[in-house]
Amino acid sequence: MPKKVLETMLAKDNFTKWLGIVVDEYKEGYCKLHYTIREEMLNGHSIVHGGIVFSGADSAFAFACNSHGRVSVALDVHISFIDAALPGDVLTVEAKEVHTGHKISFYDVTTKNQNGKIVAMFKGTAYRTSKSVC
Amino acid sequence: MPKKVLETMLAKDNFTKWLGIVVDEYKEGYCKLHYTIREEMLNGHSIVHGGIVFSGADSAFAFACNSHGRVSVALDVHISFIDAALPGDVLTVEAKEVHTGHKISFYDVTTKNQNGKIVAMFKGTAYRTSKSVC
Amino acid sequence: MPKKVLETMLAKDNFTKWLGIVVDEYKEGYCKLHYTIREEMLNGHSIVHGGIVFSGADSAFAFACNSHGRVSVALDVHISFIDAALPGDVLTVEAKEVHTGHKISFYDVTTKNQNGKIVAMFKGTAYRTSKSVC
Amino acid sequence: MPKKVLETMLAKDNFTKWLGIVVDEYKEGYCKLHYTIREEMLNGHSIVHGGIVFSGADSAFAFACNSHGRVSVALDVHISFIDAALPGDVLTVEAKEVHTGHKISFYDVTTKNQNGKIVAMFKGTAYRTSKSVC
Repeated sequence: MPKKVLETMLAKDNFTKWLGIVVDEYKEGYCKLHYTIREEMLNGHSIVHGGIVFSGADSAFAFACNSHGRVSVALDVHISFIDAALPGDVLTVEAKEVHTGHKISFYDVTTKNQNGKIVAMFKGTAYRTSKSVC
Repeated sequence: MPKKVLETMLAKDNFTKWLGIVVDEYKEGYCKLHYTIREEMLNGHSIVHGGIVFSGADSAFAFACNSHGRVSVALDVHISFIDAALPGDVLTVEAKEVHTGHKISFYDVTTKNQNGKIVAMFKGTAYRTSKSVC
Repeated sequence: MPKKVLETMLAKDNFTKWLGIVVDEYKEGYCKLHYTIREEMLNGHSIVHGGIVFSGADSAFAFACNSHGRVSVALDVHISFIDAALPGDVLTVEAKEVHTGHKISFYDVTTKNQNGKIVAMFKGTAYRTSKSVC
Repeated sequence: MPKKVLETMLAKDNFTKWLGIVVDEYKEGYCKLHYTIREEMLNGHSIVHGGIVFSGADSAFAFACNSHGRVSVALDVHISFIDAALPGDVLTVEAKEVHTGHKISFYDVTTKNQNGKIVAMFKGTAYRTSKSVC
């Protein structure tokens, strides 16, 4: 199931493509991916835009929470920005399921740079619809 | 001061440009902007990627919290996704200062679509460094 | 409906009683209440314990999101602590509905002290069960 | 240092006493504690009040982030309520440091019940003042 879910989602996910995201590991309730910071991802202080770091984590969260095959959408997310990232940095994101109930699931997502330093902590809560991803 | 801060930040802010953001109103502690959802901003369910909605709000937050002239960076953000957005939707974002202390400031950021419907609520907390934006 | 919901909930709500909460205004999607900080509510720095400020806001959120008559429980809450409170301070809490959907509702809750200064911002997301409060 | 910090804080922390909190383990950047849910901690649905679960986690966070000896106060907290708790349940809370910078520190706090089931996830961000705890 997870493999088909990922293929179905990636085929449509234009923004994940723009981010240059590569999914490294994927199974039920879990997703690990990486991407590289580019010049066009910078903000007004010439460091990575917070929205980019959020987006990489949000993609991992989306893939992980849809992995059971039910269309799931983000309700609430909290992110703490711990360290900046610069062009050339390779960010690795790991999304882990904390709990999945009938209608709601909770995920913990960590973003680290190529030196293993934490860049951001992200907590996501998803609503599980009754529709199938594929 | 605010005008020069915005010019300085926009000149470097590549991702805000990619988002197609237009700043409509800007003063100390306040920023209002809008942007239009494009096909390349969609996710694996063919609706807007959560990272895009976050990014639009994060840009408004960044401009507003830097408006006093001190370089300020996001610490914590919480976002609630209330309604989806689709290609062609025009999202308007309004960032308002709730409180600014010596080192920390708090902002409330709302994103609405062209029909006035709330798409997302965003709360941002920033750390105010002692460096000047310009 | 709201009046009966509030009576039903207050009759069982032991901790809201301990907090000394007085509900000042209550209608569908809205609750305003106040309470006074006591010595037994202090933390290890001799200021109000963060859990007390959270609790006052959480009670207002709970009353407001149950006001439509369906048992609703908190999923996610984000709180920003903006100013401290001390014994004798009277805190007023106002919970306002941002959006109510079929299964999920979103609330914005503000806590102010007797001088009108913001003590905390609180955002709550609730899951609406199919059970009735009364 | 941590031992003296904990003694100093506990001596004043009236609300932590009311909660019946017992600290089981304490060192720099870490705190583990437990407490038992009582009837007076219930809300209007006769389950534990969200403010109680928040408070137990907030005490662990406060002890952990003050453990380095500098007075540290909560800025932002996000909590996800995953499972309910009832009278007699024994909740164990573990606060772990994710990162400590010069002025800001980040903590991850988990609350579990006596069966090892997760009751709540809590993320806390603290501001580190230049004052000493003791």
